[in-house]
Amino acid sequence: MYYIGIDLGGTNIAVGLVDEEGKIIKKDSTPTRTEREYPEIVKDMAMLSLKVIKDAGVDLKDVKSIGIGSPGTPDEKNGILVYANNLRFYNVPLRAEMQKYIDLPVYIGNDANVAALAESVAGAAKGLQNSVTITLGTGVGGGVVINGKVYSGFNSAASEPGHMTIVVDGEQCTCGRKGCWEAYASATALIRETRKAAKEHPESLVNKLVDGDLSKIDAKTAFDASRQGDKIGQQLVDQYIKYLAEGLANMVNLFMPEVIVIGGGVCKEGEYLLAPLRKMVRERVYTQEIPLPDIKVAQMGNDAGIVGAAMLGKD
Amino acid sequence: MYYIGIDLGGTNIAVGLVDEEGKIIKKDSTPTRTEREYPEIVKDMAMLSLKVIKDAGVDLKDVKSIGIGSPGTPDEKNGILVYANNLRFYNVPLRAEMQKYIDLPVYIGNDANVAALAESVAGAAKGLQNSVTITLGTGVGGGVVINGKVYSGFNSAASEPGHMTIVVDGEQCTCGRKGCWEAYASATALIRETRKAAKEHPESLVNKLVDGDLSKIDAKTAFDASRQGDKIGQQLVDQYIKYLAEGLANMVNLFMPEVIVIGGGVCKEGEYLLAPLRKMVRERVYTQEIPLPDIKVAQMGNDAGIVGAAMLGKD
Repeated sequence: MYYIGIDLGGTNIAVGLVDEEGKIIKKDSTPTRTEREYPEIVKDMAMLSLKVIKDAGVDLKDVKSIGIGSPGTPDEKNGILVYANNLRFYNVPLRAEMQKYIDLPVYIGNDANVAALAESVAGAAKGLQNSVTITLGTGVGGGVVINGKVYSGFNSAASEPGHMTIVVDGEQCTCGRKGCWEAYASATALIRETRKAAKEHPESLVNKLVDGDLSKIDAKTAFDASRQGDKIGQQLVDQYIKYLAEGLANMVNLFMPEVIVIGGGVCKEGEYLLAPLRKMVRERVYTQEIPLPDIKVAQMGNDAGIVGAAMLGKD
Repeated sequence: MYYIGIDLGGTNIAVGLVDEEGKIIKKDSTPTRTEREYPEIVKDMAMLSLKVIKDAGVDLKDVKSIGIGSPGTPDEKNGILVYANNLRFYNVPLRAEMQKYIDLPVYIGNDANVAALAESVAGAAKGLQNSVTITLGTGVGGGVVINGKVYSGFNSAASEPGHMTIVVDGEQCTCGRKGCWEAYASATALIRETRKAAKEHPESLVNKLVDGDLSKIDAKTAFDASRQGDKIGQQLVDQYIKYLAEGLANMVNLFMPEVIVIGGGVCKEGEYLLAPLRKMVRERVYTQEIPLPDIKVAQMGNDAGIVGAAMLGKD
């Protein structure tokens, strides 16, 4: 059997036909154009799904289900997207709307959760029953897989590790709370701290790497400076890894998954990030006398959304 | 069918015969006497189990299993207690040792986890599939029930919410880490802060309530002073509830259980604790637009260990 996975994003709708192993057979995409009302957007999702199935030369009756991953909070049971601010979707009946066009079971899930499922089925956590996937981007996204299934709590609104406070009364978070992990471990946070340091230390390599133009600072800047021996760069990297480790150690103490998968652009730093990170996480776990989770880099990249959404329908 | 539940503590071994609904039919206890080697202690556990079954007038063939809850970290799969410092147990083969005396399946679990299972089967979370139980005592214990079963991760060492850092570089925790929730929300932490305040403010009611003898301060002292309008007492209570709320909100954002159950002596403060706590937790949850978990007080009291251990064997 095959599965349709739809990655519904604020910019593009990506649709893929996925096999039992989580491999994409055929994929396609179209702009979301969020200025439109939801019936038009969902119609595009359905039409593109039918096109992808046709292009793959697969019969519709060999497709088992449709899965949709999107930002925001889904009502998984009723197939309703309760809200997704950047899509301007509020209580959108995604399942019912899709089924106007295609008579298949429709599953919905949060994008960070389906990314975790993708890593679990076909990526860095392949073959493992329990894993946690953390994505370090604009925010800190997270998904938990337990017994091979996404864990999302009673209201399908879990898990949001990015909004776990690690510093009471700390940095302001976009969610309204203070001191969330996201406010320290996201790429956004690293950029914020790098800009602050560049302003305070105009003599530093951090500043020189962007020719004094702080708007050019990105999540690589501090790492680049640190690799070249810059003291400020190194402090920034040390501090970033420390906060990242604090949150990861919390996830270990809470979930004890077989593996923690981390994704997002900052993971391109490879062992320069991972080696100290593994050490710092281990030091912060409450016990040292038993096997502990490994930390691995995500493998699914941009396909995570399609594959994870598709796998929502797999038994 | 019936189930034997054994609450193996540092002071006493409590054994109960429990029915399908989690009700104790018969119970008994004997001192643990941890100065002894484990074969003697386990023999006592077995003999007391047989006695309880006999005293209850139940036939051994109507007993389905034996469950043992203990402090420390179990290897649930192999029935080995990997370590429990206060019992001086290291890699003790509890299952094999018990089965020398009684030919029944033997399950083992961490005491905080079985307490959570007890609340789930017969207590404040009865009838709910997903719950989190937090016990505020010397430390902060925690257990997570998912789909009616204890969640303990791949190594049976989860979940330890008490060792989730909420203040990076904060108060020293007994686990070696800094800023753990336990170092702010345990009864021990509240007593520490109350003593500190009493010392700094000898004029406060906190100080008068113990006749200036700081060793008499317990987890009630700050609440008693606060109820009587003492400013220092109120500050202590406000601060305690805030840190408690920060950790509980993390648990909500991470697990979204149907209910969070809180136990331990401090819960005797009732609505004086719970009303502000519910409000502060809610404010800290990342979303307000969906149903959120309720917070309830634990109901199982001292029976939690027996009932939860017994229910480890229930399908």
